[in-house]
Amino acid sequence: MVDKSVNSGRVATDPWDEVARRLGTDLYLDLQPDPTASPRGRGARRRHSLAEALRAAIDDGRLPAGTRLPPYRSLAADVGLARGTVASVYQELIAEGWLVARQGSGTHVADTVGRARTDAEPTRARAELPPPRHNFALGQPNSSLFPRADWIASTRRAITEAPDDAFAPGHPQGTARLRRSLASYLARARGVRAEPEQIVLTTSVMSALELLSRSIFGDILAVESHGLPFHRQVIERGGTSTVPVAIDTDGAVVDDLPDAVAGVLLTPSHQFPTGVSLSPPRRTAVIEWARSGGRLIVEDDYDGELRYDREPVGALQALGPDVVIYAGSVSKSLSPAVRVGWLVLPPQLVDTMVWAKGIREPDASIVDQLVLADLIDSGAYDRHIRRSRQYYRRRRDRITGRLARSGVRVPGIAAGLHAVIPLPADSESRVVADASRRGFALAPLSFFRHPACDVTDGGSADGRGLGGGVVVGFGTPAASAFAADVEALADLVGDYLPNRRLRAE
Amino acid sequence: MVDKSVNSGRVATDPWDEVARRLGTDLYLDLQPDPTASPRGRGARRRHSLAEALRAAIDDGRLPAGTRLPPYRSLAADVGLARGTVASVYQELIAEGWLVARQGSGTHVADTVGRARTDAEPTRARAELPPPRHNFALGQPNSSLFPRADWIASTRRAITEAPDDAFAPGHPQGTARLRRSLASYLARARGVRAEPEQIVLTTSVMSALELLSRSIFGDILAVESHGLPFHRQVIERGGTSTVPVAIDTDGAVVDDLPDAVAGVLLTPSHQFPTGVSLSPPRRTAVIEWARSGGRLIVEDDYDGELRYDREPVGALQALGPDVVIYAGSVSKSLSPAVRVGWLVLPPQLVDTMVWAKGIREPDASIVDQLVLADLIDSGAYDRHIRRSRQYYRRRRDRITGRLARSGVRVPGIAAGLHAVIPLPADSESRVVADASRRGFALAPLSFFRHPACDVTDGGSADGRGLGGGVVVGFGTPAASAFAADVEALADLVGDYLPNRRLRAE
Repeated sequence: MVDKSVNSGRVATDPWDEVARRLGTDLYLDLQPDPTASPRGRGARRRHSLAEALRAAIDDGRLPAGTRLPPYRSLAADVGLARGTVASVYQELIAEGWLVARQGSGTHVADTVGRARTDAEPTRARAELPPPRHNFALGQPNSSLFPRADWIASTRRAITEAPDDAFAPGHPQGTARLRRSLASYLARARGVRAEPEQIVLTTSVMSALELLSRSIFGDILAVESHGLPFHRQVIERGGTSTVPVAIDTDGAVVDDLPDAVAGVLLTPSHQFPTGVSLSPPRRTAVIEWARSGGRLIVEDDYDGELRYDREPVGALQALGPDVVIYAGSVSKSLSPAVRVGWLVLPPQLVDTMVWAKGIREPDASIVDQLVLADLIDSGAYDRHIRRSRQYYRRRRDRITGRLARSGVRVPGIAAGLHAVIPLPADSESRVVADASRRGFALAPLSFFRHPACDVTDGGSADGRGLGGGVVVGFGTPAASAFAADVEALADLVGDYLPNRRLRAE
Repeated sequence: MVDKSVNSGRVATDPWDEVARRLGTDLYLDLQPDPTASPRGRGARRRHSLAEALRAAIDDGRLPAGTRLPPYRSLAADVGLARGTVASVYQELIAEGWLVARQGSGTHVADTVGRARTDAEPTRARAELPPPRHNFALGQPNSSLFPRADWIASTRRAITEAPDDAFAPGHPQGTARLRRSLASYLARARGVRAEPEQIVLTTSVMSALELLSRSIFGDILAVESHGLPFHRQVIERGGTSTVPVAIDTDGAVVDDLPDAVAGVLLTPSHQFPTGVSLSPPRRTAVIEWARSGGRLIVEDDYDGELRYDREPVGALQALGPDVVIYAGSVSKSLSPAVRVGWLVLPPQLVDTMVWAKGIREPDASIVDQLVLADLIDSGAYDRHIRRSRQYYRRRRDRITGRLARSGVRVPGIAAGLHAVIPLPADSESRVVADASRRGFALAPLSFFRHPACDVTDGGSADGRGLGGGVVVGFGTPAASAFAADVEALADLVGDYLPNRRLRAE
């Protein structure tokens, strides 16, 4: 209970009138009932407003440390609240340390609060960069394609049908419901050989790589000479250093893989970013390399479903389920807003991985896992993939067709959400600077280059040379802007490549 | 295209009959159309089945390395598929490395596949422990309380109303939509002083602690002598070591905090696991300690909304928003299946934290973030909290009432989802072993003890001594089992505490 001594009347040293004046406006404003703003009852709302008004007044210095508060009966009468309500607000603020009740001298503002506020003003809304005029940012499906109606329908079914224990703490491996659906889906869509027991669900390929680095990779992992910098960063954060292996038109030059590495991270279906596919002989060779040396291959199948010219080439994993760790997510196929990814592991590695995740680290939303399982099992996911393929195929054709008219041939297979536009290595930085001035979001090929590559030769790891280029994400532009974006892109490239015909895939 | 030489007819060295025999059963089985299993068209399905049957036969050794396959025309006739379909299946398997086309001698199984399969049998369904008979596992809300209908309704609204760019890659800070809702919710429910710009969304308090350790904590962080071991582990994994500070009935003994630490991790509302609340004088003292030494306080408000005897005490953060990092999640209030948590940071730390998350690491599902924002703004979240409070209050009352009849007083405030049942330190391990035999899931108090504590005195950091005990999560038992579970618990405790009256809170 609040100290009864405060009820004995007003004390002249710091009269209530003065406190009321200091509190006044805020109390008046904050105590206005707002029936739409809160589901709480009106009384509870007004009680909260009083507490909040007092905290704010103390906090911003209107009621400085040591200020004596009026007796709760006076305050109750002044603000039209029940006496008990005001007494309980005092009690609450005493419990929180805002106020102290001193025996014999009433309730005062505590000494140590509200002092550092001026240093700690919250940052105001962060300055956001304006959106780029021509947004060819990478790694994004077109956000207008998200299958909203299907997601809502699957949520309704999945949440209605889930057993209660779906809402209990989940296993770090992820819900069995989605692992079953995925095992079947990955088998039919990508030829992956997976039992549900081999699948570990994560939030993304990136978080999966960090977990692998922390638990399974050794000291050194080979990576493609060009790849996602933040993938290399999380691998290195997990304690594994990376060395580059060259890429040519048949994909990673796996014959060059050094012996002294624990394994290699590859993008066999559609090398990121160069867009080539790992050739059949190299597929068998790299499996052999892994098996003969007790090594691992991590297959990042980041857009394996999005092949446009023919059926997708099956996953490398199916050739060597004993040595390949298959990694994927819905970030390209559905949306990066749904944070669900997966690893298909050689069976002997599953326990290590689950241990690395930790018993309390399911990471990926179980609710989303259940919804995704329903999306797959109902066929909606397959329909969405087919729709997406048609959509992106048209976009890729439009870009390659338009650039071909300017004499520029886009290398790489007809797949994915991005394309490389080749440039002489020495003009790359000028093109990118100019592109930025013209309002483009796009990335220079050198952005993806491993730091250990020889930059004097366009960044190849072996001297064969990839040349320069810019990488454009053609999933990103809004439908209404795409035609103009492609024209602007052709203009940009045309300004730097007069009559130049680039090497074929 | 597949090598034309394979079309010239059957070759005696490895006749088609033999291959057909080896393939036969699987082909027959797998090519059965299953209209319910797949949304794909029937032709595509049969094409896939053929490819899969061939892969499986190669993989498990029925078609050993070097085996010559029949011409695609023969196979097409035998299995009733179009010739072009079978040709494209061969082509696909060549691209994947399963088959090789040798000039002049047809299509063969490649040399390096299918060898290691016997070593790599997937682990069978993991042996799961049977569920405990009396499940007092910690840290779990009752999974039957999950507000399914509200979640579905909020999903419908949130997904329908979201702008397209909600499905584009998210900012690592989390969606502004939920940060706005949370800032307002945390202010009214917990007294937290937060602008949306100060909030960083995460998947859980645990992942938030790891991020903080990696970016903001210094070399040493003080932690309560008893707390979650996996919280200490992630902090240490991030590079910060921990030292314990004692707990008594007023919460952490903040006067004992050493100078040589960068800050302290506290559970002020309801100490985990002892259940005490940090006293008002200690609240102001710890803020003062942090301010005077340039230190930080991390407030883990893991169940701050679940106070049963009165309005919750407001967050410590409100007393010192310049020095307190406030952490919370929906894991106790809603379900650990929804992986959304938050940090409210002093403004000057926001950029560091966002940088630590990395530009591509939004972590928490944006879809769930949008749904949670709608759940909060629609009032459904508040209704759920009120329902939950009533539910858990009845459960806690039942446990404390029943144990009181056995002469056992449960210490700590009326709050949260767990209770400590005190025991003499020397009997704790016997009780826990016996509990395990009787089918209980519960945890010994010593499980939560910091390893640097003095175990000879019940694990206190300062010699004052907490004694022993078991910690029971009363949210977990199913409604149908709860009454019997409580009786069994009282029986268990009664067997070890004849007529013993424990010290009050």
